Amino acid sequence: MTTTETATLHTIDAAALSRFAALVYERAGLRHEDAAIAADSLVQADLWGHQTHGVMRLPWYVARLRSGAVAAAASPQIISDIGAVAVIDGHHAMGQVSAAAAASAAIKRAKTHGLGAVAVRNSNHFGTAMYFTLMAAREGCIGFLSTNASPAMPPWGGRAKAVGTNPWSWAAPAGAADPMVLDIANTSVARGKIYLARQKGQPIPLGWALDSNGAPTTDPVAALGGVTLPMAGHKGYGIAVMMDMLSGVLTGSNFGSAVNGPYQADKPGGAGHLMLALNIAAFQPENAFAERMGALIAELKAAPLAEGFEEILYPGEIEARCDRRLRGEGLTLPDDTIGDLHKLAVEMDCVGDLPI
Amino acid sequence: MTTTETATLHTIDAAALSRFAALVYERAGLRHEDAAIAADSLVQADLWGHQTHGVMRLPWYVARLRSGAVAAAASPQIISDIGAVAVIDGHHAMGQVSAAAAASAAIKRAKTHGLGAVAVRNSNHFGTAMYFTLMAAREGCIGFLSTNASPAMPPWGGRAKAVGTNPWSWAAPAGAADPMVLDIANTSVARGKIYLARQKGQPIPLGWALDSNGAPTTDPVAALGGVTLPMAGHKGYGIAVMMDMLSGVLTGSNFGSAVNGPYQADKPGGAGHLMLALNIAAFQPENAFAERMGALIAELKAAPLAEGFEEILYPGEIEARCDRRLRGEGLTLPDDTIGDLHKLAVEMDCVGDLPI
Repeated sequence: MTTTETATLHTIDAAALSRFAALVYERAGLRHEDAAIAADSLVQADLWGHQTHGVMRLPWYVARLRSGAVAAAASPQIISDIGAVAVIDGHHAMGQVSAAAAASAAIKRAKTHGLGAVAVRNSNHFGTAMYFTLMAAREGCIGFLSTNASPAMPPWGGRAKAVGTNPWSWAAPAGAADPMVLDIANTSVARGKIYLARQKGQPIPLGWALDSNGAPTTDPVAALGGVTLPMAGHKGYGIAVMMDMLSGVLTGSNFGSAVNGPYQADKPGGAGHLMLALNIAAFQPENAFAERMGALIAELKAAPLAEGFEEILYPGEIEARCDRRLRGEGLTLPDDTIGDLHKLAVEMDCVGDLPI
Repeated sequence: MTTTETATLHTIDAAALSRFAALVYERAGLRHEDAAIAADSLVQADLWGHQTHGVMRLPWYVARLRSGAVAAAASPQIISDIGAVAVIDGHHAMGQVSAAAAASAAIKRAKTHGLGAVAVRNSNHFGTAMYFTLMAAREGCIGFLSTNASPAMPPWGGRAKAVGTNPWSWAAPAGAADPMVLDIANTSVARGKIYLARQKGQPIPLGWALDSNGAPTTDPVAALGGVTLPMAGHKGYGIAVMMDMLSGVLTGSNFGSAVNGPYQADKPGGAGHLMLALNIAAFQPENAFAERMGALIAELKAAPLAEGFEEILYPGEIEARCDRRLRGEGLTLPDDTIGDLHKLAVEMDCVGDLPI
């Protein structure tokens, strides 16, 4: 364990942390290969700089495995297959396991048919969508993945939660450059930013939230008693609903308020996902695509800068840079995450394997 | 011609207006069936209440046909076909003609393979994306359509236009209810709203625009001298870039600043589109899907209302209602649109066919 200058941060080797997380997952009942995927996807989120989706979530996932809400030993099963389209029943396995199975199955279909779609039902929270769309990008495909999630936002015109954050991702290879990747939830703002405004005594922008009466508010306290709005107003509402249509309705999974989130330890998620893969070679030679992606990226980056910016980045670039840096330097985790992991290690009888 | 009580509005029968627009298009060199599609898509936009994409655009499209920028007699041609995936070269035909060809080809592939993708290159502005995704919804498919467009927004961190509005649409049937449809551009706000704020002397919200120095502004005058920002900040930037990746890069069409808009009468657009169709029956029985869509819609509409709202609508509902009303009542067009259409009728020697 290397301690950084501030006492509250710990630097940990990513590979060692992934081995630890995999061991914890195995002890929670996952098969060896499923544990490896679930662990890698958590550590990868930390490497991309998305700590909110990183190993800090390991205890939550383990709680759901222990309660039986997530079926540790379940295997995602293809229940319908007509060539380019397949439907997978996740049988309530970990979302990461079912999403990885869907990505592999969609890529395989894209290689044969030019494109493939794989619907997943009876799944759970899968972490970071781009983990799976990048599987497609690494195989010369464009990947799309959507999921539904538990209600987090009101429908447009409503004041109570009825629509999930319903994240979605597109990813494409970009030749020698890092892949181009989009991975977004449809919320206007992470709830943490409203907490921060309350702490600082600052107003929040209109459009972030409604108060408990369903009136627009700039008061962070009133906002925290109300609901967070979709991004981009009615457009974000429309996108979130469409992602539920694809992920929940089309796949034969739960949808709307029937989806449970990862913070409810005792309820099956019931989430659904839709994975698409488009084989680039079915549209044009791969090297031509790579060259064209390079030209698009170069043009974006060459635009004159706005005030306060030093560089223009393309989607996914910041994550790829962060990943390269942290694989070398090690991951920096806050004290409370380390404490949570240590507690988990004690419970799972593997303190000696915690790489700190 | 029926005159409404205000002197500046004219009520016109939609079908008669469509026949007039088709005649104008035929005289501008389009084949009979292409003229019918191009005309119907304009009048349909008016019927949905999207007048900005309606017959007010007829003179602009005709100007592009007359200049030769749009090839009136060109036929979209399938230049590559591997079963589920096809590539169409639009040969600079009207975007509506190529997009309709792509939608038909994608639906046909979805019926055979479960899903289909059709890429379109060398096309032009196609009007309203949902016109084409609804073709899929009417055939029991989920439709997706994206297009690129001429630069309209800066990349995130930039201050000069380098990214198009790049609209995209998803549509799905909803049983006995009107289809669920999303059709959005990735801009924060239509430029018209900034003009309106200037006129009223009101500030605009932060996040709508940058001034000419690339600084965020709430001054509508400064905003009109600068650039309009993407919706939802960096998320809208990411989405718009991904839509160019799909529509321009993947299809083999122009992308980035090489795409020209419909207001430049003398330059080929070079726009590209990507159309996807997913056959619902490949995922689950169509009647089960319809029933589930009904349940999702019912749940959204049952949420308690926010302040100032009388009803919750699902995506596409407002357009469907408007369509039903205006097909009965007739379309209401402003004086200047009527004037433009009359001028065009004189030029095309068909004043007697203008239904006013």
